[in-house]
Amino acid sequence: MGYGVGIFGASGYTGGELVRLVDGHPEFRVEVLAGSTSAGLALRDVHPQLSGGDRRLLAMEQAAEHNIDLAILALPHGASAPLAMNLLDRGIPVVDLGSDFRMDTPDRYLEAYGSEHAYPDQLGEWAFGLPELFEESIVGADRVAVPGCYPTSAILALRPLLAAGLVTPKPITIDSMSGASGGGRSAKPNLTFGSIDEGVTAYGVLTHRHRPEIEQGLVVGSQEPTVVFTPHLVPMQRGILSTCHAPMASSGTSAGDLREVLEASYGKSPFVEVIDRPPQTRWVIGSNRCLLWVGVDPRTGTALVLSALDNLIKGAAGQGVQCANLMLGLPETAGLELNGWMP
Amino acid sequence: MGYGVGIFGASGYTGGELVRLVDGHPEFRVEVLAGSTSAGLALRDVHPQLSGGDRRLLAMEQAAEHNIDLAILALPHGASAPLAMNLLDRGIPVVDLGSDFRMDTPDRYLEAYGSEHAYPDQLGEWAFGLPELFEESIVGADRVAVPGCYPTSAILALRPLLAAGLVTPKPITIDSMSGASGGGRSAKPNLTFGSIDEGVTAYGVLTHRHRPEIEQGLVVGSQEPTVVFTPHLVPMQRGILSTCHAPMASSGTSAGDLREVLEASYGKSPFVEVIDRPPQTRWVIGSNRCLLWVGVDPRTGTALVLSALDNLIKGAAGQGVQCANLMLGLPETAGLELNGWMP
Amino acid sequence: MGYGVGIFGASGYTGGELVRLVDGHPEFRVEVLAGSTSAGLALRDVHPQLSGGDRRLLAMEQAAEHNIDLAILALPHGASAPLAMNLLDRGIPVVDLGSDFRMDTPDRYLEAYGSEHAYPDQLGEWAFGLPELFEESIVGADRVAVPGCYPTSAILALRPLLAAGLVTPKPITIDSMSGASGGGRSAKPNLTFGSIDEGVTAYGVLTHRHRPEIEQGLVVGSQEPTVVFTPHLVPMQRGILSTCHAPMASSGTSAGDLREVLEASYGKSPFVEVIDRPPQTRWVIGSNRCLLWVGVDPRTGTALVLSALDNLIKGAAGQGVQCANLMLGLPETAGLELNGWMP
Amino acid sequence: MGYGVGIFGASGYTGGELVRLVDGHPEFRVEVLAGSTSAGLALRDVHPQLSGGDRRLLAMEQAAEHNIDLAILALPHGASAPLAMNLLDRGIPVVDLGSDFRMDTPDRYLEAYGSEHAYPDQLGEWAFGLPELFEESIVGADRVAVPGCYPTSAILALRPLLAAGLVTPKPITIDSMSGASGGGRSAKPNLTFGSIDEGVTAYGVLTHRHRPEIEQGLVVGSQEPTVVFTPHLVPMQRGILSTCHAPMASSGTSAGDLREVLEASYGKSPFVEVIDRPPQTRWVIGSNRCLLWVGVDPRTGTALVLSALDNLIKGAAGQGVQCANLMLGLPETAGLELNGWMP
Repeated sequence: MGYGVGIFGASGYTGGELVRLVDGHPEFRVEVLAGSTSAGLALRDVHPQLSGGDRRLLAMEQAAEHNIDLAILALPHGASAPLAMNLLDRGIPVVDLGSDFRMDTPDRYLEAYGSEHAYPDQLGEWAFGLPELFEESIVGADRVAVPGCYPTSAILALRPLLAAGLVTPKPITIDSMSGASGGGRSAKPNLTFGSIDEGVTAYGVLTHRHRPEIEQGLVVGSQEPTVVFTPHLVPMQRGILSTCHAPMASSGTSAGDLREVLEASYGKSPFVEVIDRPPQTRWVIGSNRCLLWVGVDPRTGTALVLSALDNLIKGAAGQGVQCANLMLGLPETAGLELNGWMP
Repeated sequence: MGYGVGIFGASGYTGGELVRLVDGHPEFRVEVLAGSTSAGLALRDVHPQLSGGDRRLLAMEQAAEHNIDLAILALPHGASAPLAMNLLDRGIPVVDLGSDFRMDTPDRYLEAYGSEHAYPDQLGEWAFGLPELFEESIVGADRVAVPGCYPTSAILALRPLLAAGLVTPKPITIDSMSGASGGGRSAKPNLTFGSIDEGVTAYGVLTHRHRPEIEQGLVVGSQEPTVVFTPHLVPMQRGILSTCHAPMASSGTSAGDLREVLEASYGKSPFVEVIDRPPQTRWVIGSNRCLLWVGVDPRTGTALVLSALDNLIKGAAGQGVQCANLMLGLPETAGLELNGWMP
Repeated sequence: MGYGVGIFGASGYTGGELVRLVDGHPEFRVEVLAGSTSAGLALRDVHPQLSGGDRRLLAMEQAAEHNIDLAILALPHGASAPLAMNLLDRGIPVVDLGSDFRMDTPDRYLEAYGSEHAYPDQLGEWAFGLPELFEESIVGADRVAVPGCYPTSAILALRPLLAAGLVTPKPITIDSMSGASGGGRSAKPNLTFGSIDEGVTAYGVLTHRHRPEIEQGLVVGSQEPTVVFTPHLVPMQRGILSTCHAPMASSGTSAGDLREVLEASYGKSPFVEVIDRPPQTRWVIGSNRCLLWVGVDPRTGTALVLSALDNLIKGAAGQGVQCANLMLGLPETAGLELNGWMP
Repeated sequence: MGYGVGIFGASGYTGGELVRLVDGHPEFRVEVLAGSTSAGLALRDVHPQLSGGDRRLLAMEQAAEHNIDLAILALPHGASAPLAMNLLDRGIPVVDLGSDFRMDTPDRYLEAYGSEHAYPDQLGEWAFGLPELFEESIVGADRVAVPGCYPTSAILALRPLLAAGLVTPKPITIDSMSGASGGGRSAKPNLTFGSIDEGVTAYGVLTHRHRPEIEQGLVVGSQEPTVVFTPHLVPMQRGILSTCHAPMASSGTSAGDLREVLEASYGKSPFVEVIDRPPQTRWVIGSNRCLLWVGVDPRTGTALVLSALDNLIKGAAGQGVQCANLMLGLPETAGLELNGWMP
């Protein structure tokens, strides 16, 4: 009973969260786990925090042959595409947490990734897995590309204000701060404790691949936004805070006006809440929530929106499960937490 | 339907975890929340990480008059006793996470706390809320005193070995390392970020109140153990690791012999697992699990047991819910997590 | 021999750094230490990391009567002004690390602090203690107001570009990230380990007192800049990173052009260096250095300048010593570190 | 003028501290820097926190041919021995911070490292570089092997008490907690931020190589101590706290008696201080100090000594410079800090 889920890329941080969420989901069960370098290992060897540790990871190809009702992919850039096409050919719905199918055109893909896409016809065919803003395309879909963690935080913050015409998109300035899990789990010199603890740094400055993805998600009508996006690595495991600036369309608009638009947009969304003080990332860690705050600086005519989420949950695994729920006709909140973990 | 739970002391770290666990429990619901200095505040003001933020905290006395099926107390030393007696008089079962009713005799209470107990007749009447070792006294009880976080970690590590006669209790040396949440949530000079981050310190050296509690929990037959207990504060939010040393009773005993005894003791316990490498606290954060490892140093005739748990869950709120489950005849695991949160 | 220095406000984080720097200075010696609530305590009780722990802190008034050659004040807002006037009356040069004398006009003071200044005639009479940009007014001065940590980072980043006409000041967007020591040493609920560890938050949003100070420091000719300034608290002890955005004056200007201007401005400054990759705060912790990087986003016509410093050294105590050196005709670098402490 | 120093192994954490200390030393100057995989790189590429960033690292062999007055080696196990013999042949005094020459006999080397030593005749010929206890053998020596960070903390804590006959050495129990820099700088899976942050773990349990080294340093007369040593990794960069337990020789001895012995041993040592409360590692970070506290548990007849130092300074680079000072007839404190860095 319930849906048998295959988790491809189970050994990373997002993969571990997927196992935890699927284990706790009332309608899902882990049917098969797949890894690449971790194929053959027991779950306890890659995720000692999880129970059921003698479950084993299979190689990707082997796992892809299992009978599953749903596949969730948490794979490095480039690895999702051929696997997803194979699974779809076999009639298995796919949620891709990776970046292979997020872009809507070959041009935007080229801009973001600097190379041609292997399946250009697929671009634009995948639902953009941000349920609060694109639910209608996700419900019942068989292929959903979940946006990245930074884009999720930024698009939730700004898109309703752009759509309402209250802010303009040239230029939008976004400074984001992320915990280290956003950099993945592999042992790189820039990810050691000695490199990250007690320091903050900007990275991917002017070149980060999420900038085109944010711009795509902020297109409203014929307006093409231009975004200056600077991500920063801060010494914590999880969490993203995005501090977003957009020019006000009119000097007569108040913070209350902006807040009303956001509240109207998310009033029925269980996971996005507009609050009356700047959100801390600690308030969302462990939950699938995104907290928003909006203010106005009248001296410069700037709208300021602060957006906080857990990069591994609302920014990855949780949003993936939220999309899966919608694809399969289940309640959007099934298996997802509203309560966070602080401290 | 389900049991209406009153949480007394809802504004602390343990209180927040209790709300989260009860909210997620299939048979429990939060009926009333109580605080002292936080009485009158909305839940979002004291626990912004929790949803349902407009639930309000009542004053203790006011909350005590509600119709509830179970009370869980997470109060400072001395505050539990009168409230608990009041609730019991009204027929409400009580789980006390505080220290007021843990000691089994007035003498031991005096040794630990340096004062007379207000209700000396109660000492010894409360079940000791460590289900893996004292389940029979908890099932169906109406008053359960949950042990402290350090005692839970140490007693789970050593008691079966003492009971089997494989180690002797004079002296036992325990060095424990705890995250900062063990010190509570109030703003004290020794709990600022600037005081804790990037440092480690021993505290309560030779005087910590948990030492008599550990010794009480390690009494087997007529043997009175003597323990040297040194807790250390390390710069992390959650988690306890206890490194426990006990003299071997016989030089012929191997680590395998010790492990067999522990495995036999906990084989049917869903939350305690004996593993084959030293446990990290990160592997248990977020779950109600306690992980154990045992080794032997033949040069000195020492048994070494390492024990890891989440001080706010298995060391407090989770163990409280586990006891409540047993008191009410529910499955021991109801509402409790086996999967942890790493990273 | 050497200069006898009085340190007023010795018990805070900045005060501790002042003692360390003065102890290590070839021409300075600590003559007297003063505290308010810490008056009467031994240095070891307030700064156990410092040697010479039996030196005692005096009350402010008592310390002010000592014969000293220089006073350095590290006091809360409002406490510097009367003490500084008293010391100056006695002919003692004053370096004020506090905020009382930084503003150049009563109006700007009112804007920043919301109240009238007690000594309005003094505003504009104090040298602005940012040696790399205002050295001429500091050399030989008897009263120097050292800018705040955020303003130091932002003004060093942007002022030369504004002065060269390469960027324009309306609006300038600055997102800064600071370690917790910037919030001071007192035990407040928002400064506990449990409140800061593993999270990031914006604070003082649209209202921070450093915004007018930054704007004042960026005035060039008749241009009045308008700045949107958002500080963020990140879980580390020390360090500030400021990510500064300014509109380019002309589309023909390259990052190389901007870099040349910064390098020309700071070529003779031992403590400010323009580097070719985004600076990490870890690279400046422990030293008096500020590291800068500049880039250009041609799509939006934005200049991006990243600026990193140690908030307690270049942002406070170190810059104070640097100013004192200039006031007294000593080498600018005396007693100051160029090498940092990583890890 | 001054002594030209060669630093071999300049790219690690200890190497970086050596450059900083030698740069700040009144009688030393960096003459040559050597690395293995980092040979050819500029100092700024390996230590961006240091000034003089265009100094280049040479290959080991090339650097060894330079005319230097002193060589300090901070190399992995096994790499020091041949290089040191080469340097000594050329008449260059050697301070080895590595482990190759610490053991006093081939047997003890074999026990610690599991293999034969390449230069067995050298064992016992090197001074043991712990100046507070073995100064006479270091003064004027041409070859000094500096003990490891854990042994330094443990031997300083216990040796005087054993020598005075106040405690006995069978068994001694030592639980130490160390920051992550003790594990070195290379990018290993167990050293990532995601593996260390927010957790504590024991490692090298019952097998750590420093155990024989501690035992060797605690030999007094014909007594061979047996030590149970368990190191723990805690989430911080620097610092070691050792919690040391030894059986009291007599029940009549008080904590005051033990303290008197320690104070008498270290009364003339500028870097070791006996204090009256448990030391925090934060109090010694950045300085060359070791802080000790001693207590007695009369119930078990146990002496408890707590010992805190900075593993990269008193536990490595600083102690190396301290030894070099003594070898060359300079003041023991030259170039070394007494003041630490908190916060």
